[in-house]
Amino acid sequence: MPNFTFYQRVSRAFHESSSLSKLLVLFTVSGGTGALVAYAEADRSNNGAFIGSSETVSEKKKVVVLGTGWAGTSFLRNLNNPRYEVMVVSPRNYFAFTPLLPSVTSGTVEARSIVEPIRNIFRKKRMDIEYSEAECLKIDAENRKIYCRSSLNNNNNGIEEFVVDYDYLIIAVGANVNTFNTPGVEEHCHFLKEVEDAQKIRRTVIDCFERASLPIVSDEERKRILHFAIVGGGPTGVEFAASLHDFVNEDLGKLYPRVKDLVKITLLEAGDHILSMFDKRITAFAEDKFKRDGIEVKTGSMVVKVSDKEISTKEMKNGGEITTIPYGMAVWSTGIGTRPFIKDFMKQINQANRRALATDEWLRVEACDNVYALGDCATINQRKVMEDIAAIFKKADKDNSGTLTVKEFQEVIDDICERYPQVELYLKSKQMRSIVDLLKEAEGDVKKESTELNIEEFKAALSNVDSQMKFLPATAQVASQQGAYLAKCFNRMEECEKNPEGPLRFRGEGRHRFKPFRYKHLGQFAPLGGEQTAAQLPGDWVSIGQSSQWLWYSVYASKQVSWRTRALVVSDWLRRFVFGRDSSQI
Amino acid sequence: MPNFTFYQRVSRAFHESSSLSKLLVLFTVSGGTGALVAYAEADRSNNGAFIGSSETVSEKKKVVVLGTGWAGTSFLRNLNNPRYEVMVVSPRNYFAFTPLLPSVTSGTVEARSIVEPIRNIFRKKRMDIEYSEAECLKIDAENRKIYCRSSLNNNNNGIEEFVVDYDYLIIAVGANVNTFNTPGVEEHCHFLKEVEDAQKIRRTVIDCFERASLPIVSDEERKRILHFAIVGGGPTGVEFAASLHDFVNEDLGKLYPRVKDLVKITLLEAGDHILSMFDKRITAFAEDKFKRDGIEVKTGSMVVKVSDKEISTKEMKNGGEITTIPYGMAVWSTGIGTRPFIKDFMKQINQANRRALATDEWLRVEACDNVYALGDCATINQRKVMEDIAAIFKKADKDNSGTLTVKEFQEVIDDICERYPQVELYLKSKQMRSIVDLLKEAEGDVKKESTELNIEEFKAALSNVDSQMKFLPATAQVASQQGAYLAKCFNRMEECEKNPEGPLRFRGEGRHRFKPFRYKHLGQFAPLGGEQTAAQLPGDWVSIGQSSQWLWYSVYASKQVSWRTRALVVSDWLRRFVFGRDSSQI
Repeated sequence: MPNFTFYQRVSRAFHESSSLSKLLVLFTVSGGTGALVAYAEADRSNNGAFIGSSETVSEKKKVVVLGTGWAGTSFLRNLNNPRYEVMVVSPRNYFAFTPLLPSVTSGTVEARSIVEPIRNIFRKKRMDIEYSEAECLKIDAENRKIYCRSSLNNNNNGIEEFVVDYDYLIIAVGANVNTFNTPGVEEHCHFLKEVEDAQKIRRTVIDCFERASLPIVSDEERKRILHFAIVGGGPTGVEFAASLHDFVNEDLGKLYPRVKDLVKITLLEAGDHILSMFDKRITAFAEDKFKRDGIEVKTGSMVVKVSDKEISTKEMKNGGEITTIPYGMAVWSTGIGTRPFIKDFMKQINQANRRALATDEWLRVEACDNVYALGDCATINQRKVMEDIAAIFKKADKDNSGTLTVKEFQEVIDDICERYPQVELYLKSKQMRSIVDLLKEAEGDVKKESTELNIEEFKAALSNVDSQMKFLPATAQVASQQGAYLAKCFNRMEECEKNPEGPLRFRGEGRHRFKPFRYKHLGQFAPLGGEQTAAQLPGDWVSIGQSSQWLWYSVYASKQVSWRTRALVVSDWLRRFVFGRDSSQI
Repeated sequence: MPNFTFYQRVSRAFHESSSLSKLLVLFTVSGGTGALVAYAEADRSNNGAFIGSSETVSEKKKVVVLGTGWAGTSFLRNLNNPRYEVMVVSPRNYFAFTPLLPSVTSGTVEARSIVEPIRNIFRKKRMDIEYSEAECLKIDAENRKIYCRSSLNNNNNGIEEFVVDYDYLIIAVGANVNTFNTPGVEEHCHFLKEVEDAQKIRRTVIDCFERASLPIVSDEERKRILHFAIVGGGPTGVEFAASLHDFVNEDLGKLYPRVKDLVKITLLEAGDHILSMFDKRITAFAEDKFKRDGIEVKTGSMVVKVSDKEISTKEMKNGGEITTIPYGMAVWSTGIGTRPFIKDFMKQINQANRRALATDEWLRVEACDNVYALGDCATINQRKVMEDIAAIFKKADKDNSGTLTVKEFQEVIDDICERYPQVELYLKSKQMRSIVDLLKEAEGDVKKESTELNIEEFKAALSNVDSQMKFLPATAQVASQQGAYLAKCFNRMEECEKNPEGPLRFRGEGRHRFKPFRYKHLGQFAPLGGEQTAAQLPGDWVSIGQSSQWLWYSVYASKQVSWRTRALVVSDWLRRFVFGRDSSQI
């Protein structure tokens, strides 16, 4: 080992000195929302003499990133432009691989195996990145400041709050749990958003079994304690129900043979089906499998109140009848809400009536310079074609003839499709190959080149296009792609300022700097327990069973952010196969 | 995997039915402190018909074990007499391999890797063992009852306390931390007794680094926050200091390069040296290594007060001067105290002035029928030879001649040595081969066979023997050996009742049922960090360095209670070598 350490030291020393001799000299010219930065690299032939002074270095643009979840971490991992000075502010000093949280609740995977310190993620980058463990309290977009509070409260000497300036602000703070103001939920239900939540659920499951095993507890009480209620039939709730069922049947049953037959798992869903966002075949398979497994699925059951021992539900199928169900542990996993300081910020910028921070297609918060929002706290406010139809027509009608030839139209087709992704979705839904077909449909079957449309005909042709506008789901996949997209924009900020690569500005001059964000759906998994997983892949390809489980294993292993977590997660799975899951209260 | 699960099911079904057909029939006859139990095993040729009824089964003797630490777990693991009905009561439903706790503080080993659910430990035994997660509140030895309170407090419906009857009570509840009533220790110091303590320390170390990295903290404050004070220079304190130093230097330094040079570790010891229970060579090596590593060792420094940011010490070397040291995190590891309900029990049985429950050499609590105590909560009250000298003389003097010949003496030598272990230690310390040498010394050099001693000469010969009486240290090794010893006694209770195998009763008739407990010291380790460990093995064999570290690895791996924890601990070590330690706040 000493050799190993020695090697590390030598390597570190080398890296440090080499980066010193490559010290960057920056001449920064600000302009509008972008920044034009010219830089020179002091090369080694220069005898290591430093060019420039510390003042020029400090003129780096300051990027503040709020949050270390999927979006923030993906941004940091992909950012590699040394012309920024980055400050990360988050109450969690680690990134957590949240799709494995349900596995943590049952101990299939350890909490530590799915987290990676954020400092580890950016430590090897040749960039100026700092991290502060604090939560953001307030955003002052006018003065480009954020107010933070350290979330550590041991021996803090009263110093708690501080202010950070920014040139660019990246808001990637994720979302809260949404209780829909249901009384008792905050006090009595478990959530499944953070690593600590999963650990708490795991301890509580064991606690329930221990309590039910006490000699003085009545049988009725045992039944209540061992009734696990899960509210919300989305992917998280379903996966948790399945993994809890496996935990009980494969592991806890052996350790608590006296009480295992009293265990009951109930999944409460207000809608008509669980996994409603998936293909119907998956929903049917899941409902069927749960029935066989003895997991009760109550659909059309809306929770209206939670007390310490009972859940009250409104049964939609029985005309809104209120019933109460005794329970031992309840897990609430129904949708997401907005964090309080984001709500305040939304009020400031006149978005108070929205669910999440509205951004344009470039992830810029609307009406807010140099503020970006991505991940669960944001929603892209896709521009409608019909809002811009006159501008589009005018731009396309180059000869100002008042009519649009197919040729004229074809010249702007790519820009339209890029700027308004709903066009492409609409074409796909109508099984058309190109936008020209749309015009044909409007005009009847005429020869391509000769077709001419006036503005009214053009409007009519595109009138239904906006119906295909879709909100992106609040998933890790979206957040991660947004983070990577935004980092690439930041990496090429100066370059694209000079040579814009985006679509035509229909309502202005020139082109947009960047291509707008476009989400690429890679598919979604729904693990159903017992080594069965449902997978819905792009092109509506559905796969259910053990093969999907192995696909799940390989995808989740490959998506880990570091070799360390990858090795840990895989070894956790192996350990579970060999030794089962642990049931200590740790 | 379905195959695997199927195999498990078949195997379980087989075990269950086979144990049913082997149902034991018990005819229990109680008598004195023991129990004479005859039993028959319904064999399989009996067509599986059950012999006996449930009433006879319920006449099993009820053994209640308090605690799931080293002593209690060792007892449970070694017990294999199906004539007992065992009830385990402990607030912890797992056994923790405590010697690895310092490794948990730095993340070298994960908390979960060193714990094993207690139900897993006894699950495969063909015995009637139940576990209740509760803490004992009160022992009523007169009525053979213990009062327990469930330590789970979620949705408990008001049911919290219950009473358990026992025939035999095994007290193995360990000890508290001893603060010596130093003000502020409870509030501001960390301890290192439980798994949760180690996890909390780990989180606090990371917290200190995060806090010191905040932009608003002054340099002076940074220094304070990164000052780690460890009170107590025993093996735990020293190992913790060493592992913290490694954690900082090998892992945290890389992630917190800006603050790593401000870190300071101080070890405060009231005595003149650290590791005073070890060989002087080890102490010197440790002090020297710590000096080289930059860990400050302050000996003769007694902590008199701890406030939220400062520790006040009395400097023995400077005439008792009081100095104050600012600190960021303090760990208190100085000796052990008595748990409150044990203190109450000690008052009941007139042991109020003792440090721990006094037992005889058979681990029976003094003046208390059928109550046994072992591990850190107990101390063996070794009987003095001089107290029994007249009885010994009388027993040995078979012809009642008033004098003892060497021959007469030789006949009881083995019994004396067995009953009074200090005799052997005394002989060893004087480098004598046998007890006869002692008499010779008293008599001068005379011929063996003809030597005769009267009672006064006999007293004189043995007068110094009791000086070699030793208290056993409060270690895992002692507790574990005591548990195994007691289980073996319980396993052979009936057998030994008929054929006692212990030494002569010098003050009564016949022989003791069992041989008294005898501790066999197997050596002790003191890991000093940087892959250096000091080992003191039996025969005062001292080994320091990397070879001892490998010995340490192999001993600690082999001593794990299950293959699961063994595999986990070893894979944790490997992981540390490959990926370093994790620094997330989990």
